[in-house]
Amino acid sequence: MRAMVLRGTELSIEEVERPVPGPGQVLACVRACGICGSDLHFARFAEEMIAASRGSDPAGWPAMDLDAGVMMGHEFVAEVIAAGPGAEAWTRGTRVVSVPVLPTPNEGRGMASIGYSSRYPGAYGEEVLMAAPLLLRVPDHVGDALAAMTEPCAVGLHAVREARVQPGEHAVIMGAGPIGLMTLLWLKHDGARHVTVTDPAAARRELAARLGADLVLDPSSDDVPARVAAAAGGPPPVVFECVGVEGTLAQAMNLVARRGRVIVVGVCMMEDRVRPMIGINKHLTLQFVLGYTAEEFAEALAAIAAGTVDPSPLVTRTVALDDLPAAFRSLSDPRDCKVVLTFE
Amino acid sequence: MRAMVLRGTELSIEEVERPVPGPGQVLACVRACGICGSDLHFARFAEEMIAASRGSDPAGWPAMDLDAGVMMGHEFVAEVIAAGPGAEAWTRGTRVVSVPVLPTPNEGRGMASIGYSSRYPGAYGEEVLMAAPLLLRVPDHVGDALAAMTEPCAVGLHAVREARVQPGEHAVIMGAGPIGLMTLLWLKHDGARHVTVTDPAAARRELAARLGADLVLDPSSDDVPARVAAAAGGPPPVVFECVGVEGTLAQAMNLVARRGRVIVVGVCMMEDRVRPMIGINKHLTLQFVLGYTAEEFAEALAAIAAGTVDPSPLVTRTVALDDLPAAFRSLSDPRDCKVVLTFE
Repeated sequence: MRAMVLRGTELSIEEVERPVPGPGQVLACVRACGICGSDLHFARFAEEMIAASRGSDPAGWPAMDLDAGVMMGHEFVAEVIAAGPGAEAWTRGTRVVSVPVLPTPNEGRGMASIGYSSRYPGAYGEEVLMAAPLLLRVPDHVGDALAAMTEPCAVGLHAVREARVQPGEHAVIMGAGPIGLMTLLWLKHDGARHVTVTDPAAARRELAARLGADLVLDPSSDDVPARVAAAAGGPPPVVFECVGVEGTLAQAMNLVARRGRVIVVGVCMMEDRVRPMIGINKHLTLQFVLGYTAEEFAEALAAIAAGTVDPSPLVTRTVALDDLPAAFRSLSDPRDCKVVLTFE
Repeated sequence: MRAMVLRGTELSIEEVERPVPGPGQVLACVRACGICGSDLHFARFAEEMIAASRGSDPAGWPAMDLDAGVMMGHEFVAEVIAAGPGAEAWTRGTRVVSVPVLPTPNEGRGMASIGYSSRYPGAYGEEVLMAAPLLLRVPDHVGDALAAMTEPCAVGLHAVREARVQPGEHAVIMGAGPIGLMTLLWLKHDGARHVTVTDPAAARRELAARLGADLVLDPSSDDVPARVAAAAGGPPPVVFECVGVEGTLAQAMNLVARRGRVIVVGVCMMEDRVRPMIGINKHLTLQFVLGYTAEEFAEALAAIAAGTVDPSPLVTRTVALDDLPAAFRSLSDPRDCKVVLTFE
């Protein structure tokens, strides 16, 4: 079967070995897979990211070999082709999503990633292995590209729930990329009184306004603190940092109210500079967040299926597998939001 | 009356105007005042600190004029000399402590600092004004130097309570200065299972061991993560950063367990570098803390009076007012812990 493989910083479509479902696993053909910003980063900075992660926890990062090639793709929906022993209840043709992990009880740390592995295929390819106990059936009325949004939708949900936004509080989201916009959707879903979204790109600000932002601002020209305070009645008690480039963390600490929380969702790959004195004087909390729980993943799918959260406007483009390496190279274009690999 | 005055970065003992107690105020003669690390920083970096604080909140820092002179000293016990109108219940000779603020209902932001002001004396001098409603009587059996420890003791209490240490959790305190040691005392008071204290100075490590640390380590030679994990059964869920120099925040983020909390108590005056990716991969919380509540201040005094928290070993030296500027210049000596100005 064919899949995109990363070697060093080179991406190519290759013929790779078709996996065989083991006990409790299914083999599924990928229907759609969103391109994740973390994958774009990884394709450029894989070596540094692997090294940095090993530094923080040697056991925390699955084994990847950039020389042997890494297979990515973790925001996906797939259709069951075949079932391994004990997974026969999942019949051929069933569309499913799951958290992108694969239990591997007899290997290593007992859990492989679907999407960052040299050994197991990710969903930037024709077929993946999935774990039967983790599968969620996708209702027929939810299209492939929308179903593939379940994973980033769960990331936004997790960020919002970790922020414990209280009734009457307002919030600022820095960055209107897919994760910032998913955060916006969940803040509005959960009843946040007023949400400001900042982004330097006009197309992204328009998308944020369309998705329910009460105020959209251009941080490169607008006086964000003054405009937020005027519109929402004071500095924001919660700021979601969904940009992840050098300097945005310090901006978030300056913007947030005293005793406020900065929820760090954007991954800055490089070292960043902060002024701890600002944090101390304002008695701030910085909450770094990552991923989601299995319950949040299921809640994201249920909300998408019910239409109470609708991330479909985020999908700005679909691409075929052969065009995926080129799409990776072009994704700095701010007119793109979520680009989705599809198979027709 | 005489007081130490900071002009630019120069400290000198000067004759200053004796304040007159207004309504609800008492005039009190200082019995003892601890030298606070923040004051040492301030004496060196006052201009930058004032500028940085104004940057984060123009209203947040009391008016100070380094040309006119700034009077410091906020860790103190004093004895009532005279009472203003409405404060007559506080009779001459009563020893008192209070949170170091002075309500000034008819001026500025309505609250002056005792200890960072060009207008009101701090306790590095013979006399201070205090607010009657904030006064707490010091029991006779608590000596002056010990009573002056109430304020930093409350800082440690606040840090520990904000950390919400759960039963069975262990903790690491980076830095065995007065605040790190106060944090240690309260962690042990609150029943923490195992507390490690790290400090490069042997004298400080000895003091930490004497005050109840379960393990003391030298971060310049010991493998802190390995030693902590071996002694306490794993990486620490809570790390108190009580050093506040460049790099210690990143060290704390590396040391703490996944999903852990770094409580930032030490004030790094300069920009510091962190790796947000470490924070995100480990799903960390950074909680910056400052000060204490009035209730925590009262609890600190009560615990000192009851002997359930005993910071008396922290006092390594007392000095007279005339020797205070020299003591400021010598406080980089790690054999000193808390140096206390006393009046005999």
